[in-house]
Amino acid sequence: MAGNSFGTIFKLTTFGESHGPAIGGIIDGCPAGLSLDFEAINAEMQRRKPGQSAIVTQRKEEDEVKFLSGIFEGKTTGTPIGFTIENTDQKSKDYSHIKDIYRPSHADYTYDKKYGIRDYRGGGRSSARETACRVVAGAIAKQLLQNIKITAYVSSVGEMELKKNYSQVDFSEIERNPVRCPDAEMASKMEDYIKSIRKEGDTVGGTVSCVIQNVPFGLGEPVFDKLHAALGKAMLSINAVKGFEYGSGFAGTKMKGSQHNDEFKRGGSTKTNNSGGIQGGISNGEDIYFKIAFKPVATIMQKQQTIDSKGDKTVTEGKGRHDPCVVPRAVPIVEAMAALVLADFYLLNKISKI
Amino acid sequence: MAGNSFGTIFKLTTFGESHGPAIGGIIDGCPAGLSLDFEAINAEMQRRKPGQSAIVTQRKEEDEVKFLSGIFEGKTTGTPIGFTIENTDQKSKDYSHIKDIYRPSHADYTYDKKYGIRDYRGGGRSSARETACRVVAGAIAKQLLQNIKITAYVSSVGEMELKKNYSQVDFSEIERNPVRCPDAEMASKMEDYIKSIRKEGDTVGGTVSCVIQNVPFGLGEPVFDKLHAALGKAMLSINAVKGFEYGSGFAGTKMKGSQHNDEFKRGGSTKTNNSGGIQGGISNGEDIYFKIAFKPVATIMQKQQTIDSKGDKTVTEGKGRHDPCVVPRAVPIVEAMAALVLADFYLLNKISKI
Amino acid sequence: MAGNSFGTIFKLTTFGESHGPAIGGIIDGCPAGLSLDFEAINAEMQRRKPGQSAIVTQRKEEDEVKFLSGIFEGKTTGTPIGFTIENTDQKSKDYSHIKDIYRPSHADYTYDKKYGIRDYRGGGRSSARETACRVVAGAIAKQLLQNIKITAYVSSVGEMELKKNYSQVDFSEIERNPVRCPDAEMASKMEDYIKSIRKEGDTVGGTVSCVIQNVPFGLGEPVFDKLHAALGKAMLSINAVKGFEYGSGFAGTKMKGSQHNDEFKRGGSTKTNNSGGIQGGISNGEDIYFKIAFKPVATIMQKQQTIDSKGDKTVTEGKGRHDPCVVPRAVPIVEAMAALVLADFYLLNKISKI
Amino acid sequence: MAGNSFGTIFKLTTFGESHGPAIGGIIDGCPAGLSLDFEAINAEMQRRKPGQSAIVTQRKEEDEVKFLSGIFEGKTTGTPIGFTIENTDQKSKDYSHIKDIYRPSHADYTYDKKYGIRDYRGGGRSSARETACRVVAGAIAKQLLQNIKITAYVSSVGEMELKKNYSQVDFSEIERNPVRCPDAEMASKMEDYIKSIRKEGDTVGGTVSCVIQNVPFGLGEPVFDKLHAALGKAMLSINAVKGFEYGSGFAGTKMKGSQHNDEFKRGGSTKTNNSGGIQGGISNGEDIYFKIAFKPVATIMQKQQTIDSKGDKTVTEGKGRHDPCVVPRAVPIVEAMAALVLADFYLLNKISKI
Repeated sequence: MAGNSFGTIFKLTTFGESHGPAIGGIIDGCPAGLSLDFEAINAEMQRRKPGQSAIVTQRKEEDEVKFLSGIFEGKTTGTPIGFTIENTDQKSKDYSHIKDIYRPSHADYTYDKKYGIRDYRGGGRSSARETACRVVAGAIAKQLLQNIKITAYVSSVGEMELKKNYSQVDFSEIERNPVRCPDAEMASKMEDYIKSIRKEGDTVGGTVSCVIQNVPFGLGEPVFDKLHAALGKAMLSINAVKGFEYGSGFAGTKMKGSQHNDEFKRGGSTKTNNSGGIQGGISNGEDIYFKIAFKPVATIMQKQQTIDSKGDKTVTEGKGRHDPCVVPRAVPIVEAMAALVLADFYLLNKISKI
Repeated sequence: MAGNSFGTIFKLTTFGESHGPAIGGIIDGCPAGLSLDFEAINAEMQRRKPGQSAIVTQRKEEDEVKFLSGIFEGKTTGTPIGFTIENTDQKSKDYSHIKDIYRPSHADYTYDKKYGIRDYRGGGRSSARETACRVVAGAIAKQLLQNIKITAYVSSVGEMELKKNYSQVDFSEIERNPVRCPDAEMASKMEDYIKSIRKEGDTVGGTVSCVIQNVPFGLGEPVFDKLHAALGKAMLSINAVKGFEYGSGFAGTKMKGSQHNDEFKRGGSTKTNNSGGIQGGISNGEDIYFKIAFKPVATIMQKQQTIDSKGDKTVTEGKGRHDPCVVPRAVPIVEAMAALVLADFYLLNKISKI
Repeated sequence: MAGNSFGTIFKLTTFGESHGPAIGGIIDGCPAGLSLDFEAINAEMQRRKPGQSAIVTQRKEEDEVKFLSGIFEGKTTGTPIGFTIENTDQKSKDYSHIKDIYRPSHADYTYDKKYGIRDYRGGGRSSARETACRVVAGAIAKQLLQNIKITAYVSSVGEMELKKNYSQVDFSEIERNPVRCPDAEMASKMEDYIKSIRKEGDTVGGTVSCVIQNVPFGLGEPVFDKLHAALGKAMLSINAVKGFEYGSGFAGTKMKGSQHNDEFKRGGSTKTNNSGGIQGGISNGEDIYFKIAFKPVATIMQKQQTIDSKGDKTVTEGKGRHDPCVVPRAVPIVEAMAALVLADFYLLNKISKI
Repeated sequence: MAGNSFGTIFKLTTFGESHGPAIGGIIDGCPAGLSLDFEAINAEMQRRKPGQSAIVTQRKEEDEVKFLSGIFEGKTTGTPIGFTIENTDQKSKDYSHIKDIYRPSHADYTYDKKYGIRDYRGGGRSSARETACRVVAGAIAKQLLQNIKITAYVSSVGEMELKKNYSQVDFSEIERNPVRCPDAEMASKMEDYIKSIRKEGDTVGGTVSCVIQNVPFGLGEPVFDKLHAALGKAMLSINAVKGFEYGSGFAGTKMKGSQHNDEFKRGGSTKTNNSGGIQGGISNGEDIYFKIAFKPVATIMQKQQTIDSKGDKTVTEGKGRHDPCVVPRAVPIVEAMAALVLADFYLLNKISKI
């Protein structure tokens, strides 16, 4: 209810502020008997981790997951999986300067208004540090989903946009460059651009695209819990996200039905896939693909006019170590959230028929 | 769980197929003591109703709501509000031709795959007829929300796009034209265009914009139930929706942080509103605005190649009375879903502080 | 949230007041493909119906269920099953005398205090009429559960107590007498007693026992949703219930561990069954049995001192047609609630292992 | 869904096995601004702790709670409260002898059947160690509930039964004796009896009574979430509980309506309180009281016939340090669960009227 849980059957509840002793979560509803690959979980954490390249925040967090329950002799037991991740790089003094200041386009002001109190250190609960817990749960969800393949990548940084669609690029390129763009040449340009933005003390937005392959039929629960509605909510719950579209998306609004409809081929697959693998909220076996809009990071290394907690004018300037562009590190988070949505519907779908 | 409920505190559960005896729903969690304006509820139903103008489907449904419980002497009693809407225009024979055919880009195929059975008459449960129930609940939610003002309108039809934003148009124009575009000149062009599309036996997509004014602080529950994530899910659950963006949306991804950040004015309001009235998932008191992408209606009055339930090739052609463009009738549905989201968070927010 | 839903996967939401136009509900989450036996549903309704014998209320309600959705060609479709039951015997004038009076041990006072308004006609939402909807859903749940056999019966009326346990009686006797006691001799005494109580204008309490046979292993979800905890809540939610015990129950508190423990037999079944078929909250395959305490009906045909809505002293006297003892009609309700609990866990259990 | 969460608004989710590194939980939905008394929380933990007296298990667990989030400068912030409790006394070797053995009347067999795998060390997830997390959350709930006073005590041990009701005893006596019986003389006899039972290597059951005073009107949500139904489920979810009754309970079934009805006094309070402070599922302001049946602890220090995981006959004998009677340590757990139920309804009740 209070917004810290995601999913119904395969359910993640998270806790933790960026500068408390630890963040963590509970995964409830993971079926028993799943052999966990802990290296794979750790690999996902490394993809999200600060300090992984020159174009992301240089904070130092090891992001080591400590599992406390729900696993016995390497397998899930059907009981809740509790885990914590210590906040090893808590430089709380870095944040004393914002104690009584509302940073523009952050959650400082709204948390104070809503709760009458906030942990101002590093954004507290509103910090994207919370997404580390999502990556843990998503990594386990991916293992549950077996052959379903979820691939996210950066498709634009600012005005720089990858014009190719997912079938025209080489996924193996994604992890070869720090931007996580599946086109080496474009990745290189984006990297340079992010570096120049950082030098300006500024930040920039971008988009992440995601494709899900080998999807079984039948995932999604009409009418309110359509598969794309759940995916949309999952993505919009990630920090800094401003938009979501799937299949033909906003471009599809300009098409006619005669162009947009996906004609069936003998057997059931479709010639085109404007539907994005989902019809009536239910997966049809075609590839699911969607795109997510991320705004520029709000913390900039420039002076900004703002107000203090009394409502009076003051000036703020970003300190510390922040991402100039959030999309490279958002890639594993997008995949994790997609995995959580699919795991939930995958389990639900097992009981949709007698 | 099975996807037919929306909301947590102010909760709507709906039932019904397009060609069963009735559709309906239960609104649970509406506080006691709310004096209901039944004319206002009926007025919303009229805005969604088929046959209201020359550019929408000519099906004849009175869409009269029958309240069965939860209301006593004109006031809500705190008990569940049950209601039904009869399906008076069930021409089931119209649909016998699609019994064994999967219409392209409809939910026929996916329902059959998921459930092993489907009510093929008029789309059954996947029909947008279900949204009539949402409008009933949304109309009551609007009354609970008192001064909060929710206004949706058509902002594009196919390539025709209203270039003005919500503060540049006259809301009183919206209900004066059948398209529900708040610009008389553009509305007239859109109307002509929709008529021409209908003549071709084709359909076209479009967008609906929505703005919510006089929003109190504090609505929204971080981290997974951010206000915009809930709005996004609500909108994506409407039939034919392919995308959602709020505030700066996809355009915001191209901006720098120094441009995008919303500087505070003395007191707490902001100079710009790229945040779309939501920061960290919580309303900040500024206007909330968002845009929704609707694909072209799948039923077209043209011959299409498709398959039957055995997977073999066949041909289908739309019959009956369908909307050439869904956005004019989607306007009240968008408002209803926005009202449902806000009502839920409005109630939850009353217990966020001691 | 507002308390009108039961279950998580197989979920019933009900609505309706005793003197509104209809009561009804939505069953969400029933798997697709279940062939419904409508006569069996009706038979359950007949067992709960007023007027069925000389020892129950003589109100005349046909209690005909009208299914509005979720069923196609006799089978469930996986979509929500909406249904209504008309209130055909609404004699609202009967209740005008209690408009401003709080009847002792009814919900009049608490509803007024909680909601500030109440539908005073016949108890409104607090009337046991609501349980008709539970019987509808329970009858469908029973069909889903196939071979699982749920049998409830009256085990005491006032001081008259059936001393035999469920394995010592003949279940086929239950429906042969109006008390629903599986011992003809005791049933006859109970019947006479209830008649004498009615003549006094008084009422009396009693107990219902229930046994569930052919239960598969693994039903129940530790730790908060233990099978017996869910059964307990289900039973305690029935009107007039004051207590619940399963297995050895309150008598078991007087035993030693060495007496109480259920020794295993080769293979896994147990020699005794003090556990009542549930260990650690999970069914172990043995018979599940429990007992439920019902208080005497609050409406008596005698003058009682009470207060009006201003808090002042007044006198009330029962009018209309009421049950002198609730347990004979409670039997099918107990079975229905047990079926709802089991159906939910039966479906959940299908996804507890990979 | 998977049974590890309790509550809807004020919601506790727990994790942890008795012999993992730690147990813990997340409290979500506690309103912001509550000043926490950590000594009071610790005091509750001490009441539940092993080794507190000569008549309970002599295991050594410090049960120190480590709060990880949701609290800032001593106050709740509205964000989730994560906490862990280390398992400092994990003597896993003690349990190797039961690896392949199903102990009678434990959850060994059912967990294995349900999940196909179990953490056999000390009962794993089915251990009552989990209740330590409930006490943490309950202690916070108590602080939220302010003036509402929840008092539980031991009312019977085996055949020894306190014949006085809650208004006839001195609550200040409860914590003065290790049995937690509010009658010094009876407590002394019970203590001696428990010691003798221990010497026999046996165990015995008992009952805990609980009374809630200063309850506001309006707590409870009809129809399925009646206050007593939620209390019943809460209590039945505690390890070893076999029954629950409130108000007149099972004894009330033998009464006539004319005796049982609680006549109103001028103003609204009642002369008698057979209703147990709850009418129609909603609190009426009178004292709420109920009684809970606990079976004898299953682990006895005697040889028992049982089976191994292949279904073959074998012998088991309890080792380690176990409670001869669970009720003294159950007292704070009962209070904690009552507090969790009330906190949830207390918050929900704030939004039941406009």
